[in-house]
Amino acid sequence: MAEKQFVTQIADINENFAQWYTDVVLKTELVDYGPVKGTMVIRPYGYAIWENIQKDLDARFKKTGAKNAYFPLLIPMSFFTKEAEHVEGFAPEVAVVTHAGGAKLEEPLAIRPTSETVIGTMYAKWIQSYRDLPVIMNQWCNVMRWEKTTRPFLRTSEFLWQEGHTVHASEEEAVEETLLMLNVYREFMEDTLALPVFCGKKTEKEKFAGAVATYGLEAMMLDGKSLQSGTSHYLGQNFAKAFDIKFLDKDSKLKHGYTTSWGVSTRLIGALIMAHGDQRGLVLPPKVAPIQVIIVPIAAHKGGVIEKAKEIENALTSMGIRAETDVRDMSPGWKFNEWEMKGVPLRIEIGPRDIENNQVMVMRRDNLEKVTASIDGVDKTISELLETVQKDLYTKSKANRDKKIVEADSLDGILQGVENKNFVKAGWCGCRECEDKVKEYASATARVMCDEEGIPEKCAICGKPATHKVIFARAY
Amino acid sequence: MAEKQFVTQIADINENFAQWYTDVVLKTELVDYGPVKGTMVIRPYGYAIWENIQKDLDARFKKTGAKNAYFPLLIPMSFFTKEAEHVEGFAPEVAVVTHAGGAKLEEPLAIRPTSETVIGTMYAKWIQSYRDLPVIMNQWCNVMRWEKTTRPFLRTSEFLWQEGHTVHASEEEAVEETLLMLNVYREFMEDTLALPVFCGKKTEKEKFAGAVATYGLEAMMLDGKSLQSGTSHYLGQNFAKAFDIKFLDKDSKLKHGYTTSWGVSTRLIGALIMAHGDQRGLVLPPKVAPIQVIIVPIAAHKGGVIEKAKEIENALTSMGIRAETDVRDMSPGWKFNEWEMKGVPLRIEIGPRDIENNQVMVMRRDNLEKVTASIDGVDKTISELLETVQKDLYTKSKANRDKKIVEADSLDGILQGVENKNFVKAGWCGCRECEDKVKEYASATARVMCDEEGIPEKCAICGKPATHKVIFARAY
Repeated sequence: MAEKQFVTQIADINENFAQWYTDVVLKTELVDYGPVKGTMVIRPYGYAIWENIQKDLDARFKKTGAKNAYFPLLIPMSFFTKEAEHVEGFAPEVAVVTHAGGAKLEEPLAIRPTSETVIGTMYAKWIQSYRDLPVIMNQWCNVMRWEKTTRPFLRTSEFLWQEGHTVHASEEEAVEETLLMLNVYREFMEDTLALPVFCGKKTEKEKFAGAVATYGLEAMMLDGKSLQSGTSHYLGQNFAKAFDIKFLDKDSKLKHGYTTSWGVSTRLIGALIMAHGDQRGLVLPPKVAPIQVIIVPIAAHKGGVIEKAKEIENALTSMGIRAETDVRDMSPGWKFNEWEMKGVPLRIEIGPRDIENNQVMVMRRDNLEKVTASIDGVDKTISELLETVQKDLYTKSKANRDKKIVEADSLDGILQGVENKNFVKAGWCGCRECEDKVKEYASATARVMCDEEGIPEKCAICGKPATHKVIFARAY
Repeated sequence: MAEKQFVTQIADINENFAQWYTDVVLKTELVDYGPVKGTMVIRPYGYAIWENIQKDLDARFKKTGAKNAYFPLLIPMSFFTKEAEHVEGFAPEVAVVTHAGGAKLEEPLAIRPTSETVIGTMYAKWIQSYRDLPVIMNQWCNVMRWEKTTRPFLRTSEFLWQEGHTVHASEEEAVEETLLMLNVYREFMEDTLALPVFCGKKTEKEKFAGAVATYGLEAMMLDGKSLQSGTSHYLGQNFAKAFDIKFLDKDSKLKHGYTTSWGVSTRLIGALIMAHGDQRGLVLPPKVAPIQVIIVPIAAHKGGVIEKAKEIENALTSMGIRAETDVRDMSPGWKFNEWEMKGVPLRIEIGPRDIENNQVMVMRRDNLEKVTASIDGVDKTISELLETVQKDLYTKSKANRDKKIVEADSLDGILQGVENKNFVKAGWCGCRECEDKVKEYASATARVMCDEEGIPEKCAICGKPATHKVIFARAY
């Protein structure tokens, strides 16, 4: 028996969170570095999480009436210049194809960093009448943004995402769509990823290049930093005018449409890791875990153990639970460590004595609690436990986050707050200078506005009357 | 009521098949031309077919043990030169990124035309021991091959596909995998796309650049031309040696692995259209049709008609049937034409008199037959009819194809065969010159070899002893 010693070698989560993250994503085989600097390879264990995310979100999109489509990867560079803010925002990050088929191209082509321009061009061609509206399409695809500093899932030159693009006859309807999708994302984050999020409008500085308004979802990571987990943009008529998306309205007048776009990416996998993980490695919410239950036979060479384990596996998989039996030629202890590192929500241990007693041992990865369960009805027990784990993860995340929200009424207060790994709520006068000062002084940015909580009297930075309440945080 | 006249304007399928195809794909809104020459936009109706294809195939792949992953889009140009035949085959078609992030790149990067090189590089890093084998991964992604002449779905610079890449410890196992996946494709083509295919080994001339052997699936289109619908390659140790994929075997010796790759693409949608369509437009097999049943209310303004239609829709959708009720403000005749053009397998017509008689009219798109069905149990009737249509489509396709297979023992015979829109089976001596002569003289190519049927005595081209039996055809 070729027994390898299990050596985790994961950096200390409290001392060096960045290294802990890198260790975890590489050692659990979620991801690897691609040959080209700044690219990643999503390995099967990581991609299976993405497939679960896709399946869940896709159903939510379709429920709102969205249909999937696919638009070209390559966009003529000239398209970007049609919307002034958009080109300014994206041109510096674009990867450019200059040669193809052995010849130089007449016009250089950008690899899409986002698809407003090419989709807008097609919408202009397809939309004629108010009868054609609303148009609600989504695409799952790869995009490319050339970044200087990269980290797997969080920031890579190429990443996978979905981008929804819609056109509406009125401003009201388009704003409604923007907020509807923001809410779809929020529900998904909470229900499926077990992650509480702050949803709100972004400041002018932080909004999408070309948007009238951007709404973001901000999740707190274990190190108190914020991770923007999704965005929903109200684009007004900016892109409709730039790309000539017009329709003949009921009143026989030709009008520009109102557009929105919204997206989430493989960043969500980074969010999961950094919000739920611990020193042993990943802690995956059951709803997205590639393996929900790992069954480890004890004294597997003894007659009947593997058979019973497989029997339980079959009972679980027939209920739609993603269960596997680890029959590899390794010691149970080695397997325990590996599957804990890989964040499998539940572990079932079954040995000859358990079988005698008609029971199994079940361990929860989230709190490391062990319970015994009768083999009769183990499928029901496990099914309920998975739901409990999913809920508890959310509750725990929310409690942890809520403890780390402070208020501040000065620049020093903001600095101190973020230094102590908190989100800091503060009044803000609305001016760019104050926002820049926070960045300079505290290395923090305005994540979202939460005016609905009540606007403080004064701007924490300049002391002038506040017009907004803002969540400041350091961010990924 | 804004009644538009339904004008199909589809070119004659017998007179101008190429134009018929273009008309059908554009008018049914499967696809549109992208802004960059040679690119396509897959519209929701077309993309929904691709989603159905993906879901079906993906389950078949996973059943064989394949896991999905995602590898980078951009590949250093130098990777291609590592396998001599491979670079020769793909370099002329590659699109090249030379600039990114506002600066010139040190090394130009290719947009993947296929991913053997980048996946091989990663496999070399991941695989150490025989315990790591086999590796069976698949990715769903976009690829780019710069083509001079393009047609939607059939040949575009960018297209969507899946590419499986496997590594095995022995030649036997790798060859077995190659043939297993060929068979997975064949079953999918027959069961799901209702398309009979010839499966077999390709000639040296027609094989994949870098393969030891390529196996292809060839389907006959309505014009007698062949469409290569999928390929499975046995790559021997060519890529393992070029990319240094080595493993420590049980005998403690370091050995190169044996690799395979296999893929199908959005071309399959082209195959569907050109194999099943007719003068009215698309005829979609139920298993991949975005809408399987369209319900058209007659005299929809009359009380209770829409309600009854919706009731039937709900009964069908709750059985997992993709049914929709067309409640648009158009005449039934207009709707009939549109949904026939769009190839919806079954149409249910329901009006006040039908409701009185507790029945509906059901029309099959494939043979235009109408039957009445009792509203009681209509879900079961429809479910069975969908299965019948699926089977009948295959039977019809196979009968049509089998009528158009001829044998030839001369070059003139081959020419006459393909001129008459047939597949031509003929003996071949195995030499490249004879293959080239067929191309020159008859504009036909060797599609696959079918030696298992028995090898003719003589080569139909040169008269020397034959070593193979080949299917020659004109091809897309």
